[in-house]
Amino acid sequence: METAETQIQKVENGSIITPKGFLAGGIHVGLHVSKKDLGILVSTTPASAAAVYTQNHFQAAPLKVTQNSIQEENKLQAIIVNSSNANACTGEQGLKDAYEMRNLTAKRLHIKEHFVAVASTGVIGQHLQMDKVTKGIEEVDYNSLLSGAKAFQEAILTTDTFIKGSCYQFEIEGKTVTIAGAAKGSGMIHPNMATMLGFITTDANVPSSLLQDALKEITDVTFNQITVDGDTSTNDMVVVMANGLAGHSLLSKDHADWNTFKEGLKLVCEDLAKQIARDGEGATKLIEVNVKGARTKKDANVIAKKIVGSSLVKTAVFGTDANWGRIVAAIGYSDAEVNPEGIEVYMGPYLMFKNGIPVPFSEEEVKSYLENEHIVITVLLTNGNEEGKAWGCDLTYDYVKINASYRT
Amino acid sequence: METAETQIQKVENGSIITPKGFLAGGIHVGLHVSKKDLGILVSTTPASAAAVYTQNHFQAAPLKVTQNSIQEENKLQAIIVNSSNANACTGEQGLKDAYEMRNLTAKRLHIKEHFVAVASTGVIGQHLQMDKVTKGIEEVDYNSLLSGAKAFQEAILTTDTFIKGSCYQFEIEGKTVTIAGAAKGSGMIHPNMATMLGFITTDANVPSSLLQDALKEITDVTFNQITVDGDTSTNDMVVVMANGLAGHSLLSKDHADWNTFKEGLKLVCEDLAKQIARDGEGATKLIEVNVKGARTKKDANVIAKKIVGSSLVKTAVFGTDANWGRIVAAIGYSDAEVNPEGIEVYMGPYLMFKNGIPVPFSEEEVKSYLENEHIVITVLLTNGNEEGKAWGCDLTYDYVKINASYRT
Repeated sequence: METAETQIQKVENGSIITPKGFLAGGIHVGLHVSKKDLGILVSTTPASAAAVYTQNHFQAAPLKVTQNSIQEENKLQAIIVNSSNANACTGEQGLKDAYEMRNLTAKRLHIKEHFVAVASTGVIGQHLQMDKVTKGIEEVDYNSLLSGAKAFQEAILTTDTFIKGSCYQFEIEGKTVTIAGAAKGSGMIHPNMATMLGFITTDANVPSSLLQDALKEITDVTFNQITVDGDTSTNDMVVVMANGLAGHSLLSKDHADWNTFKEGLKLVCEDLAKQIARDGEGATKLIEVNVKGARTKKDANVIAKKIVGSSLVKTAVFGTDANWGRIVAAIGYSDAEVNPEGIEVYMGPYLMFKNGIPVPFSEEEVKSYLENEHIVITVLLTNGNEEGKAWGCDLTYDYVKINASYRT
Repeated sequence: METAETQIQKVENGSIITPKGFLAGGIHVGLHVSKKDLGILVSTTPASAAAVYTQNHFQAAPLKVTQNSIQEENKLQAIIVNSSNANACTGEQGLKDAYEMRNLTAKRLHIKEHFVAVASTGVIGQHLQMDKVTKGIEEVDYNSLLSGAKAFQEAILTTDTFIKGSCYQFEIEGKTVTIAGAAKGSGMIHPNMATMLGFITTDANVPSSLLQDALKEITDVTFNQITVDGDTSTNDMVVVMANGLAGHSLLSKDHADWNTFKEGLKLVCEDLAKQIARDGEGATKLIEVNVKGARTKKDANVIAKKIVGSSLVKTAVFGTDANWGRIVAAIGYSDAEVNPEGIEVYMGPYLMFKNGIPVPFSEEEVKSYLENEHIVITVLLTNGNEEGKAWGCDLTYDYVKINASYRT
């Protein structure tokens, strides 16, 4: 897929409404004191839909509703999202409320109920203030949705400190195809879609079954390879809508540009994933770990994630401490196959460990490197030829501060 | 084993030299600026030996030497321990140094080389200053070892803030049997013996094979059920020496008091494990999680450990925030079998979650409860009758502070 990538262009000012036929908006309905807290994303025509969900046993009510919607025809036309309240651990009333959000949105847009997906994020265990949500859905000005990507991106945030978006374009059969995404993240980010919402729009023409396969495969090496604190939330999901308005013929696995489409989707997902990792609660730095020479892709991914998830590595990066020993320890306690003797460990360009013993390096230079906002740790194994990446952030005083006082 | 426990008495002023025939001491040899950094523990006669080791792929040199010693005759008579330097990731020179520590100790004590175990803890990737270690082993005053338990306990510490010991007594065949232990812990504590050293002495008469079985079984529900930060070190081990000087007949699985012995060993291990968890880096509170009603013991242990290892639960306890939602989320992302509907969650005596929805409680009362130094979280499942426990600590500003500046 390396050659395909060169044809794919990043769209700097693109957003989830850059693909043809998408509208978005966000408003403040009062679930949060002041921030926008209700967002809506609409396709003007029914779109092929795919989604991945949290692996937490306690899936929140909106996830059940979204699954119910998609399984009907594998199509979606709208996603309604609220922040400030996760509608999780809210029992039958919570499920009723999530279905009511779906119902109200469908009525307002005059579309089928099962063309609406529902997403929520925020505090667990409190019932939604449905009067406010209802008023919001009924009163939102759909004429203003044309330029509302930023408002939507704001409305889905919780403790995030910046909005997260990504947009890429390429051509299929001479037609411009756009893939874009919006996401929210911050704390409780770990494997399996933890307190993270991702919404991806594209005007590509692709059947939902293929879209689902591609999303699952790409999620495993992007969203599922980020970690902030090792926790996994009850509410996370990534939803893709592909409405086909770019106008090329229907994609299949045999189509010459199928890999280009997949690479474009991967670029958007990886871009969003990195933004989420960088904005981990209290984070000051993005940490990227590259593992090469593993026996399997899975081994490479497991090791990369162990390193980036280690509290000791995270605090060392925060403190600009060239503590390669903690990286070695993290490699050592992963379940992956590792030949301890042949490993090389780098921070940025600096080799620090090789053949089972430390390599002399300039403490000053590495300390200076660790003051960057984007830290790359590279591990070379001698077990095979597979690679894997993971992203995370440093562990700081502010992480403790934010989470010691979140709810009350 | 409930009835056996009643015959077992805690010895408040007991230590690792309370069992008959053990000596211990600790001195400052200069690996650390000022703290005692070399400890020695001796049995006057060869003792049945058992040990468990870190599961980290990068086992440090001293662990290899200790394994080599024990496998010879399954007996030990002395353990030499240094702190400040882990002698890990130190290549062939490191292994040579660890063997040299063993050799010097054996010579000094006039015992067989393979009757000596070696343990190290501290910074990874630096060679031991063997001149200082050698001088220490050669010059330590063995006449003063009789009352040196406290000095030994101090010498094995790194970032620990207090010494850790435990001692229990019971009778077998009318003879008093004592089991005691010393440990060091603090950061990098998680499954599989992470930066943790435990030394257990007993005058019980027990074959090493049985001792090994009992130690393995008990470690899984005590030392391996504590977590501070999810990291696992390269150096951890627990070693038991049983010298038989209590004078009862040799224990076997059929002996009437075998369960009493095991329960005594478990009490010592659990006691040490809790002290290690309480003294996690930067910790202000011990968190104990009890899971009941699980389908298997393993499920119960997995869930208990997920909860106590959750950064979000740990910060909530630090901030005295009655955030039961984070406990529910942690239960949800464990791999264990869980029926989400029937779960009850308690903080101390306060029921907070039942039948999938929150139970009203007094925020003030729970907040006040969370100001205690020992917090108990209880989870009742409806999947079976098995139980499990885990111990950890809160996550605080000081954890970040200690680890952002440990090495440099």
